[in-house]
Amino acid sequence: MMKTSSAWIDQVKWNHDGLVPVITQDVITGKILTQAWMNRDALLQTVKSGQAVYWSRSRLKLWHKGEESGHVQEVSEVRMDCDNDSLLLLVRQVGDIACHTGRFSCFYQKLNEGRWEQVEPVIKDPDLIYNK
Amino acid sequence: MMKTSSAWIDQVKWNHDGLVPVITQDVITGKILTQAWMNRDALLQTVKSGQAVYWSRSRLKLWHKGEESGHVQEVSEVRMDCDNDSLLLLVRQVGDIACHTGRFSCFYQKLNEGRWEQVEPVIKDPDLIYNK
Repeated sequence: MMKTSSAWIDQVKWNHDGLVPVITQDVITGKILTQAWMNRDALLQTVKSGQAVYWSRSRLKLWHKGEESGHVQEVSEVRMDCDNDSLLLLVRQVGDIACHTGRFSCFYQKLNEGRWEQVEPVIKDPDLIYNK
Repeated sequence: MMKTSSAWIDQVKWNHDGLVPVITQDVITGKILTQAWMNRDALLQTVKSGQAVYWSRSRLKLWHKGEESGHVQEVSEVRMDCDNDSLLLLVRQVGDIACHTGRFSCFYQKLNEGRWEQVEPVIKDPDLIYNK
Protein backbone atom coordinates (compact mmCIF):
# COMPACT_ATOMS: atom_id res chain seq x y z
CA MET A 1 0.00 0.00 0.00
CA MET A 2 1.37 3.43 -0.90
CA LYS A 3 1.98 5.88 1.95
CA THR A 4 0.33 8.70 0.05
CA SER A 5 -0.39 10.72 3.18
CA SER A 6 3.31 11.05 4.07
CA ALA A 7 4.83 11.12 0.58
CA TRP A 8 5.70 14.80 0.93
CA ILE A 9 7.93 14.16 3.95
CA ASP A 10 9.78 11.36 2.16
CA GLN A 11 10.92 13.94 -0.41
CA VAL A 12 13.02 15.74 2.21
CA LYS A 13 16.69 14.74 2.05
CA TRP A 14 17.74 14.31 5.66
CA ASN A 15 21.49 14.41 6.37
CA HIS A 16 23.43 11.51 7.92
CA ASP A 17 22.14 12.58 11.35
CA GLY A 18 18.55 12.56 10.08
CA LEU A 19 18.34 16.37 10.16
CA VAL A 20 17.84 19.32 7.82
CA PRO A 21 18.73 22.96 8.45
CA VAL A 22 15.70 25.24 8.87
CA ILE A 23 15.70 28.97 8.22
CA THR A 24 12.94 30.81 10.04
CA GLN A 25 11.83 34.17 8.68
CA ASP A 26 9.40 36.66 10.17
CA VAL A 27 6.47 36.88 7.76
CA ILE A 28 5.74 40.52 8.59
CA THR A 29 9.18 42.16 8.47
CA GLY A 30 11.02 39.60 6.32
CA LYS A 31 13.83 39.48 8.89
CA ILE A 32 15.59 36.20 9.59
CA LEU A 33 14.82 35.09 13.14
CA THR A 34 16.67 31.82 13.65
CA GLN A 35 18.50 28.98 11.99
CA ALA A 36 17.68 25.66 13.63
CA TRP A 37 17.33 21.97 12.76
CA MET A 38 14.50 19.52 12.26
CA ASN A 39 14.24 15.77 12.11
CA ARG A 40 11.27 13.97 10.62
CA ASP A 41 9.21 14.07 13.82
CA ALA A 42 9.88 17.78 14.31
CA LEU A 43 8.65 18.58 10.80
CA LEU A 44 5.56 16.41 11.22
CA GLN A 45 4.71 18.07 14.55
CA THR A 46 5.31 21.53 13.04
CA VAL A 47 2.92 20.87 10.19
CA LYS A 48 0.33 19.21 12.43
CA SER A 49 0.37 21.84 15.20
CA GLY A 50 1.00 24.96 13.10
CA GLN A 51 3.80 25.99 15.49
CA ALA A 52 7.54 25.54 14.96
CA VAL A 53 9.00 22.40 16.54
CA TYR A 54 12.74 21.83 16.09
CA TRP A 55 15.28 19.18 17.07
CA SER A 56 17.61 20.43 19.77
CA ARG A 57 21.10 19.18 18.96
CA SER A 58 22.36 20.15 22.42
CA ARG A 59 19.54 18.55 24.41
CA LEU A 60 18.92 15.75 21.90
CA LYS A 61 15.15 16.08 22.01
CA LEU A 62 12.25 17.74 20.27
CA TRP A 63 12.04 21.42 21.09
CA HIS A 64 8.71 23.20 20.81
CA LYS A 65 10.04 26.71 20.26
CA GLY A 66 8.65 29.00 22.97
CA GLU A 67 7.70 26.17 25.33
CA GLU A 68 9.42 28.00 28.21
CA SER A 69 9.35 31.62 27.08
CA GLY A 70 5.92 31.65 25.48
CA HIS A 71 7.55 33.03 22.33
CA VAL A 72 6.12 30.46 19.96
CA GLN A 73 6.34 30.74 16.19
CA GLU A 74 3.05 30.44 14.31
CA VAL A 75 3.77 28.95 10.90
CA SER A 76 2.39 30.63 7.76
CA GLU A 77 4.35 28.72 5.14
CA VAL A 78 6.76 25.82 4.83
CA ARG A 79 9.15 26.02 1.88
CA MET A 80 11.84 23.64 0.61
CA ASP A 81 14.80 24.40 -1.61
CA CYS A 82 15.75 22.99 -5.02
CA ASP A 83 17.95 20.26 -3.51
CA ASN A 84 15.28 19.21 -0.99
CA ASP A 85 17.85 19.50 1.80
CA SER A 86 16.96 22.84 3.38
CA LEU A 87 13.68 24.22 4.73
CA LEU A 88 12.34 27.74 5.17
CA LEU A 89 9.56 28.60 7.61
CA LEU A 90 7.62 31.84 7.35
CA VAL A 91 6.23 32.57 10.80
CA ARG A 92 4.53 35.07 13.03
CA GLN A 93 6.87 35.48 16.00
CA VAL A 94 4.78 35.75 19.19
CA GLY A 95 6.25 38.29 21.63
CA ASP A 96 8.52 39.73 18.92
CA ILE A 97 11.46 37.88 20.52
CA ALA A 98 13.02 34.84 18.84
CA CYS A 99 16.44 34.84 20.52
CA HIS A 100 17.25 33.49 23.97
CA THR A 101 19.24 36.71 24.53
CA GLY A 102 15.97 38.67 24.45
CA ARG A 103 16.45 40.01 20.94
CA PHE A 104 14.05 39.91 17.99
CA SER A 105 16.53 37.95 15.86
CA CYS A 106 19.42 35.61 16.65
CA PHE A 107 21.48 37.24 13.87
CA TYR A 108 22.44 40.34 15.84
CA GLN A 109 26.21 40.18 15.24
CA LYS A 110 27.39 42.10 12.19
CA LEU A 111 30.90 41.95 10.78
CA ASN A 112 32.34 45.45 10.67
CA GLU A 113 36.01 46.13 9.92
CA GLY A 114 37.24 42.86 11.40
CA ARG A 115 34.95 42.78 14.43
CA TRP A 116 31.56 41.28 15.24
CA GLU A 117 29.39 44.14 16.46
CA GLN A 118 26.10 43.70 18.28
CA VAL A 119 23.64 45.70 16.20
CA GLU A 120 20.23 44.65 17.54
CA PRO A 121 18.81 45.77 20.89
CA VAL A 122 17.82 43.49 23.75
CA ILE A 123 14.06 43.93 23.96
CA LYS A 124 13.57 42.05 27.23
CA ASP A 125 15.99 40.83 29.91
CA PRO A 126 16.33 37.03 29.49
CA ASP A 127 16.01 36.65 33.30
CA LEU A 128 12.53 38.09 33.01
CA ILE A 129 11.70 35.83 30.06
CA TYR A 130 12.78 32.53 31.59
CA ASN A 131 12.13 33.07 35.33
CA LYS A 132 8.59 34.27 35.15
CA MET B 1 51.95 37.03 18.92
CA MET B 2 48.20 37.49 18.82
CA LYS B 3 46.43 36.97 15.50
CA THR B 4 44.39 40.11 15.91
CA SER B 5 43.69 40.43 12.20
CA SER B 6 41.87 37.07 12.05
CA ALA B 7 40.36 36.99 15.54
CA TRP B 8 36.87 37.53 14.12
CA ILE B 9 37.04 34.33 12.06
CA ASP B 10 38.21 32.29 15.03
CA GLN B 11 34.92 33.16 16.74
CA VAL B 12 32.96 31.15 14.18
CA LYS B 13 32.08 27.67 15.45
CA TRP B 14 32.72 25.35 12.51
CA ASN B 15 31.05 21.94 12.62
CA HIS B 16 32.95 18.63 12.61
CA ASP B 17 33.38 18.98 8.83
CA GLY B 18 34.79 22.50 9.23
CA LEU B 19 31.63 24.09 7.81
CA VAL B 20 28.83 26.45 8.84
CA PRO B 21 25.42 26.84 7.21
CA VAL B 22 24.95 30.15 5.41
CA ILE B 23 21.60 31.79 4.72
CA THR B 24 21.68 34.25 1.83
CA GLN B 25 19.02 36.93 1.69
CA ASP B 26 18.31 39.46 -1.03
CA VAL B 27 18.97 42.88 0.47
CA ILE B 28 16.34 44.61 -1.67
CA THR B 29 13.31 42.30 -1.38
CA GLY B 30 14.23 40.50 1.84
CA LYS B 31 13.57 37.15 0.13
CA ILE B 32 15.73 34.15 0.96
CA LEU B 33 17.79 33.19 -2.07
CA THR B 34 19.86 30.18 -1.02
CA GLN B 35 21.10 28.09 1.86
CA ALA B 36 24.68 27.00 1.33
CA TRP B 37 27.84 26.19 3.31
CA MET B 38 31.17 27.86 4.00
CA ASN B 39 34.47 26.72 5.37
CA ARG B 40 37.08 29.10 6.72
CA ASP B 41 38.62 29.83 3.31
CA ALA B 42 35.22 30.49 1.73
CA LEU B 43 34.37 33.04 4.40
CA LEU B 44 37.74 34.74 4.11
CA GLN B 45 37.41 34.97 0.32
CA THR B 46 33.85 36.26 0.63
CA VAL B 47 34.90 39.05 2.96
CA LYS B 48 38.01 39.88 0.92
CA SER B 49 36.31 39.90 -2.48
CA GLY B 50 32.89 41.25 -1.51
CA GLN B 51 31.20 38.42 -3.45
CA ALA B 52 29.76 35.21 -2.02
CA VAL B 53 32.13 32.23 -2.08
CA TYR B 54 30.80 28.95 -0.68
CA TRP B 55 32.10 25.43 -0.12
CA SER B 56 30.51 22.98 -2.54
CA ARG B 57 29.80 19.78 -0.60
CA SER B 58 29.11 17.88 -3.85
CA ARG B 59 32.22 19.03 -5.72
CA LEU B 60 34.41 19.35 -2.58
CA LYS B 61 35.88 22.68 -3.61
CA LEU B 62 35.41 26.40 -3.21
CA TRP B 63 32.52 27.70 -5.27
CA HIS B 64 32.47 31.31 -6.33
CA LYS B 65 28.72 31.69 -6.75
CA GLY B 66 27.97 32.85 -10.29
CA GLU B 67 31.34 31.78 -11.70
CA GLU B 68 29.59 30.00 -14.58
CA SER B 69 26.27 31.82 -14.81
CA GLY B 70 27.49 35.33 -14.09
CA HIS B 71 24.88 35.52 -11.33
CA VAL B 72 27.25 36.59 -8.58
CA GLN B 73 26.10 37.79 -5.17
CA GLU B 74 27.49 41.15 -4.05
CA VAL B 75 27.70 41.14 -0.26
CA SER B 76 26.25 44.04 1.73
CA GLU B 77 26.41 42.53 5.21
CA VAL B 78 27.73 39.45 6.99
CA ARG B 79 25.82 38.48 10.13
CA MET B 80 26.35 35.70 12.69
CA ASP B 81 23.85 34.20 15.10
CA CYS B 82 23.91 34.01 18.90
CA ASP B 83 25.56 30.57 18.93
CA ASN B 84 28.24 31.61 16.40
CA ASP B 85 27.38 28.56 14.30
CA SER B 86 25.28 30.05 11.52
CA LEU B 87 25.87 32.93 9.11
CA LEU B 88 23.57 35.26 7.22
CA LEU B 89 24.63 37.15 4.09
CA LEU B 90 22.68 40.12 2.81
CA VAL B 91 23.43 40.42 -0.89
CA ARG B 92 22.53 42.07 -4.15
CA GLN B 93 21.73 39.20 -6.52
CA VAL B 94 23.14 40.01 -9.95
CA GLY B 95 20.80 38.88 -12.75
CA ASP B 96 17.93 38.38 -10.28
CA ILE B 97 18.51 34.62 -10.48
CA ALA B 98 20.05 32.70 -7.57
CA CYS B 99 18.84 29.18 -8.38
CA HIS B 100 20.36 26.79 -10.90
CA THR B 101 16.79 26.10 -12.09
CA GLY B 102 16.61 29.68 -13.39
CA ARG B 103 14.46 30.98 -10.53
CA PHE B 104 15.03 34.00 -8.32
CA SER B 105 15.12 31.86 -5.16
CA CYS B 106 15.97 28.23 -4.45
CA PHE B 107 13.03 28.02 -2.04
CA TYR B 108 10.33 27.69 -4.68
CA GLN B 109 8.60 24.59 -3.29
CA LYS B 110 5.74 25.35 -0.90
CA LEU B 111 3.96 22.75 1.21
CA ASN B 112 0.25 22.87 0.41
CA GLU B 113 -2.19 20.23 1.66
CA GLY B 114 0.38 17.45 1.69
CA ARG B 115 2.14 18.34 -1.57
CA TRP B 116 5.18 20.41 -2.51
CA GLU B 117 3.97 22.94 -5.06
CA GLN B 118 6.27 24.98 -7.30
CA VAL B 119 5.24 28.57 -6.61
CA GLU B 120 8.01 30.65 -8.19
CA PRO B 121 8.40 31.14 -11.94
CA VAL B 122 11.44 30.15 -13.99
CA ILE B 123 12.86 33.48 -15.14
CA LYS B 124 15.37 32.06 -17.60
CA ASP B 125 15.88 28.61 -19.09
CA PRO B 126 18.91 27.03 -17.36
CA ASP B 127 20.18 25.85 -20.77
CA LEU B 128 20.50 29.51 -21.74
CA ILE B 129 22.21 30.38 -18.45
CA TYR B 130 24.88 27.68 -18.49
CA ASN B 131 25.50 27.16 -22.23
CA LYS B 132 26.09 30.71 -23.24
